Amino acid sequence: MLKVGVIGCGMIGRDHIRRMTEVVTGTQVVAVSEAMVENGRRVAAQYGCKFYEQGEELIADPEVEAVVVCTADDTHARFVLRCIAAGKPVLCEKPLGVSAEECRRIVDAEMQAGKRLVQVGFMRRYDRGYRALKQQIEQGAIGEPLMIHACHRNLSHTHWHTSDMTIKNSGIHEIDVLRWLLGEDYESGQVLTVKQNRSASAGLLDPQIMLLKTKSGTRIDVEVNMSSGYGYDIQCEVVGEQGTLRLPDPATIVVRAGGARSYEIYDDWSKRFIEAYDTEFDEWARSLAHGAPTGPSAWDGYAACLAADTLIRAREAQQPLPIELPETPAFYR
Amino acid sequence: MLKVGVIGCGMIGRDHIRRMTEVVTGTQVVAVSEAMVENGRRVAAQYGCKFYEQGEELIADPEVEAVVVCTADDTHARFVLRCIAAGKPVLCEKPLGVSAEECRRIVDAEMQAGKRLVQVGFMRRYDRGYRALKQQIEQGAIGEPLMIHACHRNLSHTHWHTSDMTIKNSGIHEIDVLRWLLGEDYESGQVLTVKQNRSASAGLLDPQIMLLKTKSGTRIDVEVNMSSGYGYDIQCEVVGEQGTLRLPDPATIVVRAGGARSYEIYDDWSKRFIEAYDTEFDEWARSLAHGAPTGPSAWDGYAACLAADTLIRAREAQQPLPIELPETPAFYR
Amino acid sequence: MLKVGVIGCGMIGRDHIRRMTEVVTGTQVVAVSEAMVENGRRVAAQYGCKFYEQGEELIADPEVEAVVVCTADDTHARFVLRCIAAGKPVLCEKPLGVSAEECRRIVDAEMQAGKRLVQVGFMRRYDRGYRALKQQIEQGAIGEPLMIHACHRNLSHTHWHTSDMTIKNSGIHEIDVLRWLLGEDYESGQVLTVKQNRSASAGLLDPQIMLLKTKSGTRIDVEVNMSSGYGYDIQCEVVGEQGTLRLPDPATIVVRAGGARSYEIYDDWSKRFIEAYDTEFDEWARSLAHGAPTGPSAWDGYAACLAADTLIRAREAQQPLPIELPETPAFYR
Amino acid sequence: MLKVGVIGCGMIGRDHIRRMTEVVTGTQVVAVSEAMVENGRRVAAQYGCKFYEQGEELIADPEVEAVVVCTADDTHARFVLRCIAAGKPVLCEKPLGVSAEECRRIVDAEMQAGKRLVQVGFMRRYDRGYRALKQQIEQGAIGEPLMIHACHRNLSHTHWHTSDMTIKNSGIHEIDVLRWLLGEDYESGQVLTVKQNRSASAGLLDPQIMLLKTKSGTRIDVEVNMSSGYGYDIQCEVVGEQGTLRLPDPATIVVRAGGARSYEIYDDWSKRFIEAYDTEFDEWARSLAHGAPTGPSAWDGYAACLAADTLIRAREAQQPLPIELPETPAFYR
Repeated sequence: MLKVGVIGCGMIGRDHIRRMTEVVTGTQVVAVSEAMVENGRRVAAQYGCKFYEQGEELIADPEVEAVVVCTADDTHARFVLRCIAAGKPVLCEKPLGVSAEECRRIVDAEMQAGKRLVQVGFMRRYDRGYRALKQQIEQGAIGEPLMIHACHRNLSHTHWHTSDMTIKNSGIHEIDVLRWLLGEDYESGQVLTVKQNRSASAGLLDPQIMLLKTKSGTRIDVEVNMSSGYGYDIQCEVVGEQGTLRLPDPATIVVRAGGARSYEIYDDWSKRFIEAYDTEFDEWARSLAHGAPTGPSAWDGYAACLAADTLIRAREAQQPLPIELPETPAFYR
Repeated sequence: MLKVGVIGCGMIGRDHIRRMTEVVTGTQVVAVSEAMVENGRRVAAQYGCKFYEQGEELIADPEVEAVVVCTADDTHARFVLRCIAAGKPVLCEKPLGVSAEECRRIVDAEMQAGKRLVQVGFMRRYDRGYRALKQQIEQGAIGEPLMIHACHRNLSHTHWHTSDMTIKNSGIHEIDVLRWLLGEDYESGQVLTVKQNRSASAGLLDPQIMLLKTKSGTRIDVEVNMSSGYGYDIQCEVVGEQGTLRLPDPATIVVRAGGARSYEIYDDWSKRFIEAYDTEFDEWARSLAHGAPTGPSAWDGYAACLAADTLIRAREAQQPLPIELPETPAFYR
Repeated sequence: MLKVGVIGCGMIGRDHIRRMTEVVTGTQVVAVSEAMVENGRRVAAQYGCKFYEQGEELIADPEVEAVVVCTADDTHARFVLRCIAAGKPVLCEKPLGVSAEECRRIVDAEMQAGKRLVQVGFMRRYDRGYRALKQQIEQGAIGEPLMIHACHRNLSHTHWHTSDMTIKNSGIHEIDVLRWLLGEDYESGQVLTVKQNRSASAGLLDPQIMLLKTKSGTRIDVEVNMSSGYGYDIQCEVVGEQGTLRLPDPATIVVRAGGARSYEIYDDWSKRFIEAYDTEFDEWARSLAHGAPTGPSAWDGYAACLAADTLIRAREAQQPLPIELPETPAFYR
Repeated sequence: MLKVGVIGCGMIGRDHIRRMTEVVTGTQVVAVSEAMVENGRRVAAQYGCKFYEQGEELIADPEVEAVVVCTADDTHARFVLRCIAAGKPVLCEKPLGVSAEECRRIVDAEMQAGKRLVQVGFMRRYDRGYRALKQQIEQGAIGEPLMIHACHRNLSHTHWHTSDMTIKNSGIHEIDVLRWLLGEDYESGQVLTVKQNRSASAGLLDPQIMLLKTKSGTRIDVEVNMSSGYGYDIQCEVVGEQGTLRLPDPATIVVRAGGARSYEIYDDWSKRFIEAYDTEFDEWARSLAHGAPTGPSAWDGYAACLAADTLIRAREAQQPLPIELPETPAFYR
């Protein structure tokens, strides 16, 4: 039973605490930390575990064997570095850092420490559909992949959403999972702006289209749409030399009523990817029991941030820019 | 160009006149007849053709080479018999007669005349989907057919609809097309009554379930539902020894909106089977140009009526009854 | 943490041991029993738990708080009765007994004991799709249910499969889940035999069609097909007064290749209902932590067996027979 | 009955001759012309119509009321200009000319003549699915369109296929139909090259991705893929402010066999768009009976060619280029 400390008790943090308590068999939450102290104490009381005001204290607690970081994006790197320093495995929600530079520091520190400790919360890699896509690609079912058409649609966006968050917080899921699907790095990226959706906040670039090209010449287009107006909808079609593979829509019942045959579309990620999150934590705990995390690495987190940073600059420059990721170090292969 | 006279200018009659004038290349409507004289004259004027008060006069017109009968069900047999007597091909809307006995008289008269003249308006045999089912069955794609699950659903029913009409006017389409799909005759039939739909007229048995068994032991269940409440919907799944074949839903655009992915369902047969009707008339005209009709024969009309009559008696008897159709005479093979 | 003893280490037993060890958080397997002693010892060693040659010894073990019965069908009743005598909760794989009489004895014993202890392994009630159907029915989305068209198809059958097993082992899932969906008891049942699938064993009645009628007049037809030839496929459409609801096909990726768009169909129940089994055990453990099981009761097990027994007699009699279930006792309401 | 002369008796020409003879009621083919004289005479004999070695002779024949041009692309403009000079309506297969300049000359000649005579064979505008998309867009079902994701896939390409033909012969369908769907002109275009499909000819850029931006800022991406390896497949999703609309797959029967649920994909355009072609010719004949063609105009043909030419230059320049179409003249509005 892995004894876990959770830093950050916001919505996603509480969800992971519940998950590690009620769903995953191999984990036990022994301590939580939260900057909003009242809230944090309440959660600790609910789950009968210790509370620390400072994440650093939680990391230092000898009972805590592994850490989950669910705080604000700009504190991720700080806590992850501290975990590395303490030699404790850490599962950090995405993004790993607010910039490629931050992520790079984590990579360097981990390599310095000489041991894989960091995993990034790219849960889509655990989704049954994406896994089936990857398996089929690797089995050669469609020959070499040539293109990916994808889209990420939210029902609507929060009032504090920014044009950069579209890339760095939402688009980053696509950046990671498609790189993983194809098993290769990006060569260049570009962002197309689109006629604005009048349902989006004034000034927000919404939707945006990310264009990516891999080293081997595979082309990717991803609609990132924060105001779909109808639901949370993730689509992905991989086009290969001999056929295509497509992510399924979730299996929802078929209703024939009122002149239509219809299928529910979920309204947020928590329903859409609930099984992926469960599997992510389950496999994380199992991998640690065998010595080291096997999920998305610090390097993957760095690669995704670097691509996202480049895409934002490319959008501003209104032209494609090279994504200059070094070769994967042997440490991460 | 086949010169056609149409008896009956109701909704379906006018639709066929339009079809033979505007859609089918090989037909020309030269005369119409209609008991409601005013309406009939108006149609004749619109299409620039002759008008007869009596169907018999129309049949006798030497310019009329072939006849289409679209009158009330209880006059079908009279006009068809007259066409046979006149030696003119006739396409009669279903049902061929109001009873198996009436149909039998037509069969006998046609055999006596020694020439195939009669075709019955079972247009589903011309539907692209049913034809693909039949083709796949005959190619052995699923081995021997063992069962058919089908349903016929109307959006709602007219106020003059009766429990018998459910079998004889709607269900008869299923009786014919499934017999044709399987290429064999029925051995017995049964009707299950169901908890009444409160949207149906008081006293109407709606829905009903027809159960049929073929000579070889294939089982068929058909829901016949006059008050589906949501649309006109025809479904058919043929279960064979190695797989199943299913009629497709019509190809309507995919709408993602309001939390659902949805597809329109048509509200009546005219949209659903428009292409089948067009093909029916086109092939009828072509077959006559080659000498004789090749579509559903008087024998098929008789077989369907006999099965329908038996099903109605079986419903009243609340038990299965044998469907005692003689062997198909060589004349109709 | 519920300490569980498992009687029967066959395929399904081992799967449940794995499930309670690796997937469900609230259960721990502390003892197993198995008639084939070698196999049983091996499983006990693998999971580090006690082994008993006799199920009765396992039930008597004071450490065992609850029991799971996965033995041959004809031993179910014996072990369940022993658990009741010992005052221990028991989750028994379906069917609860080999006859309605056996089930009735369990019901009587449990009522005598004065406490709900028995749950039957009808896992479909935990399937996401069936639950959505039930929720929509109860919310009145389609008005009153009038009919259910269902089918249960296995890829192929074992060589020891019998015509009665089609009803009592496979069909019984449908009997239970549809009774639960509709929330009412059956009035009568009938079985139609079908032209035999030549892929089935000689003499086996395969497929069969079960026809059920509920107290309120809802009609159900269920194809039970042990030799579908293409996969494990469960279908269910509920037809109501204003629309229909249909179980979805599992969400499998869309492959466009070789002139077809295609979706995988699973080949057995373990993939199709894996999530339902997990939920079943999870909710069972939680319900016991709150005092008593809330899943399918001994009465449900009795009701299903009674219907199955009646259907088998009805098949032999070749006519519908009444299903004479007494009113649900207050104890089970 | 419109008396039509057809110039060009290749595959598509013969198909249109058959269509105008057997399917469309308002047309009669009275003369054909074909450079390969033997073939042309054979077709004329088959359909019992006149034969001319020179298209110009056919146009001059006083019996010929309207002309259909189905010759090699580089002769289209010549024959269309001759029809304009003769004051005869002409339906010209796409593309209208081999360059925007050629098309522009036709536009100028037609405006000079002062009468709409030219229609271009963009048959997709007559497809039931595209028409439903356009109707829904215009009814505001999804708010303003923001993006279109489309793809055009051929099973495989001819050995004489060139990288430019991908844009000018195949992509041009998309260029026209999407401009028509949105009801606005393009502002700029770009082409992305992709890792080459090894099934494509050496040196052929296949697939290619066309990116278009409309005047209002709607973004379009179109995969144009000559070697899909699995079928002829046309997809189109319009993403609006409140939802999306998608072209349906053709309605083909559902086969459950061999571990999969599958639907046939057609292998070429003739099956996929057969109904669109029929409607195109039917409406063309009807529109001429009312005075002038109402389908895609010479201006539409010019607009499409101009966009295609620009896209080819943009592909060579590896950057977006403006599509400098003048405002639509009043004559064409």
